Amino acid sequence: MNTATKSESIEWAEHRVEARTGGAWQVPAGCLLRVTDIEGSQTGDVFLVDAADVADGLSNGRSFDYNDSILLSVGSRLYSSRSKVLATIVADDVGRHDFLYTPCSQEMYEIQYGVTAPHPNCYDNLTDALAQFGVPRSTVTVAFNIFMISSVSADGRLTVSPTQSKRGDSIVFRAERDLLAAVSSCSSDTCNGGGSRPLQVSIGTVR
Amino acid sequence: MNTATKSESIEWAEHRVEARTGGAWQVPAGCLLRVTDIEGSQTGDVFLVDAADVADGLSNGRSFDYNDSILLSVGSRLYSSRSKVLATIVADDVGRHDFLYTPCSQEMYEIQYGVTAPHPNCYDNLTDALAQFGVPRSTVTVAFNIFMISSVSADGRLTVSPTQSKRGDSIVFRAERDLLAAVSSCSSDTCNGGGSRPLQVSIGTVR
Repeated sequence: MNTATKSESIEWAEHRVEARTGGAWQVPAGCLLRVTDIEGSQTGDVFLVDAADVADGLSNGRSFDYNDSILLSVGSRLYSSRSKVLATIVADDVGRHDFLYTPCSQEMYEIQYGVTAPHPNCYDNLTDALAQFGVPRSTVTVAFNIFMISSVSADGRLTVSPTQSKRGDSIVFRAERDLLAAVSSCSSDTCNGGGSRPLQVSIGTVR
Repeated sequence: MNTATKSESIEWAEHRVEARTGGAWQVPAGCLLRVTDIEGSQTGDVFLVDAADVADGLSNGRSFDYNDSILLSVGSRLYSSRSKVLATIVADDVGRHDFLYTPCSQEMYEIQYGVTAPHPNCYDNLTDALAQFGVPRSTVTVAFNIFMISSVSADGRLTVSPTQSKRGDSIVFRAERDLLAAVSSCSSDTCNGGGSRPLQVSIGTVR
């Protein structure tokens, strides 16, 4: 009897996203994007863009529609505004993420918290990081907010609860086409149970 | 006793949006945008753009965040991606609208219904209509889906039910800044209880 075996190894390139900052990377089709909560209790914003069309980015509405759900986890596919499959969630230690809220922004901190000085925020982190790849700011709409817990009550009211992510928990996306992926470590105390902490971003290439 | 009285009249400009088509209009700050379900059981997609910045359009995520709800009706304010107040809902006969689903598109009909021929769709209706004002297609993300009923179950699952809109029901938005407003009469049988019908768009100027 012949038994076919396939040896597969994954080579990981590691990047650290410091608290309240962001970064962006190229993730070729078939490669993996893993985001790890290094210390625990930290949420992050992930925004994906079609590398071949920088005006076409992640869409919560398309993803809700094609997954028939607002809660996405292993097996769920993330879609772009133009209905392209950008990524599939292939591993998920936490299992709960938000896709209803826009990234926190300077304007959000001003409107909701009365902040007057510049405040670190996910919108600027994501858009600044993606700008190096020529992605216009307007492409960034609603990010996939990993480890963030939002709840919808029967009357439509929204509430945000502190994340249940623990030290070392991660989520892994497989790129279904060539992507630009931005990750921000969220600065909002509401989501993170106070404070802000770093995230680890790992880009995995299957050999 | 002196009694101050203020006489106010509204001058309406009327436009008919035929079934499965769309249109776009300028709505100056302070003016009203009324959309009427002429025959009943018809949903529509409304997309608003800041006339002073055609890259900045309606955002479901920002609107959810600042209203603390996914169900918006009288008194709710609709926000842009850059957190500008675009409009306030000032009257609403139906009281139930969806803001989770993207406009139906050619790709959506292909993916979900196996359509191969060109199909009328809200995304093209909205983007084609707004293009005459120089709005790029990428500005159009999730529209405010008037009279459309979507429900979120406790486990996040989404369902769409036929609209409860009746003949003559309408919703009225007040423009909080100079807007470009696009309206599409939806072609999807799922939302409309079968078939597709016209909508009436009225732009009201307060004199």
